[in-house]
Amino acid sequence: MDIPEGVIDRLPKYARALGQLEAEGRDVVSSQELGVRLNITHAQIRKDLSYFGRFGKQGRGYNVQMLLDELRRIVGLNRQWKMALVGVGRLGRAILGYEGFSPQGFRIVAAFDSDPSLIGTRINGLTVKPVADLEKELCDGGADIGIVATPAETAQSVIDSLVRCGVRAILNYAPAFPNVPDGVHVRHIDPVLALQAMTYHLKAGAGPG
Amino acid sequence: MDIPEGVIDRLPKYARALGQLEAEGRDVVSSQELGVRLNITHAQIRKDLSYFGRFGKQGRGYNVQMLLDELRRIVGLNRQWKMALVGVGRLGRAILGYEGFSPQGFRIVAAFDSDPSLIGTRINGLTVKPVADLEKELCDGGADIGIVATPAETAQSVIDSLVRCGVRAILNYAPAFPNVPDGVHVRHIDPVLALQAMTYHLKAGAGPG
Repeated sequence: MDIPEGVIDRLPKYARALGQLEAEGRDVVSSQELGVRLNITHAQIRKDLSYFGRFGKQGRGYNVQMLLDELRRIVGLNRQWKMALVGVGRLGRAILGYEGFSPQGFRIVAAFDSDPSLIGTRINGLTVKPVADLEKELCDGGADIGIVATPAETAQSVIDSLVRCGVRAILNYAPAFPNVPDGVHVRHIDPVLALQAMTYHLKAGAGPG
Repeated sequence: MDIPEGVIDRLPKYARALGQLEAEGRDVVSSQELGVRLNITHAQIRKDLSYFGRFGKQGRGYNVQMLLDELRRIVGLNRQWKMALVGVGRLGRAILGYEGFSPQGFRIVAAFDSDPSLIGTRINGLTVKPVADLEKELCDGGADIGIVATPAETAQSVIDSLVRCGVRAILNYAPAFPNVPDGVHVRHIDPVLALQAMTYHLKAGAGPG
């Protein structure tokens, strides 16, 4: 199936909103209500979901539990994923301490840095290993996902190492756009780019944009 | 001009790549090379830029300095923006300590929390104020942008307060999808959603996705 990346990016949002509805004890939800909760048009929601089959009956809305189960299966939310963190500076330590990962099945299993003063220290239960040992440590299927929290200059070489170890998903916090081969997925977490995407509108003055 | 949000999201990336090229002393760049640096097709780049005029000559590439200046003007990168942070827990403190904002013109000028043990403390040169005083403190044009690093449950009410003060751009770190009126822009920084957008591909097994 050749599904647009934008659709795939929205699926986890649908799953999260449905999880909230489930927690509220709701059985059925319309695409309209889901849309209001997510600031996504109901037409978009219906179109996105139509890639994966026929959910919901005309005029009856979606069965919350059924759609949630299906989305979890499609997105792979009902699994455990092992992550390796590279870069344990201030940002990396905040990532290590982030409590939002493990309830969603994402576990940081290894942490690497190049700073001799950090190597060997224990942070959140993990011993920081030298980044020079990354391939030795990970190439035996040690991680599904790499988190890169290094300076921009070293991001590419770190990502090259992760890719050589078979890692096919990179969460990149470095302010850089590394190149990866086909079949390797990168998502950037970059607050400055997110801010700059909004200042376009602020600059343009008042009114909807 | 009615420019798709996806285009606007990419403009800061173009500006960043051009800034790197400028730092490398480059005068001209092709859309092909820019595309390789950013993992964006050159056709997409040309199409995006065509919304804003005619840059670059057929077969000659873009003048780095000229295009960079123009993008900075379009996106509003050559200004100072004042930001108010709400939520000074572990995540909020990492945001306060983030060194990537100020070189790009983004300055956190106020920090708020509801925790009495945090109110009045100084963090990175700012005194934490009670969130109850947010509207009093900010409604006089105190901030252009709000950063929300509260728990999910309080994000909506905090954002409502920010919006009442005329803030029209929200950088939301809370795992919630708040509703905002037309003309107010929200960008979500959510590593879990970014990870979940990739596990779709991992789950699907090997091969390009």
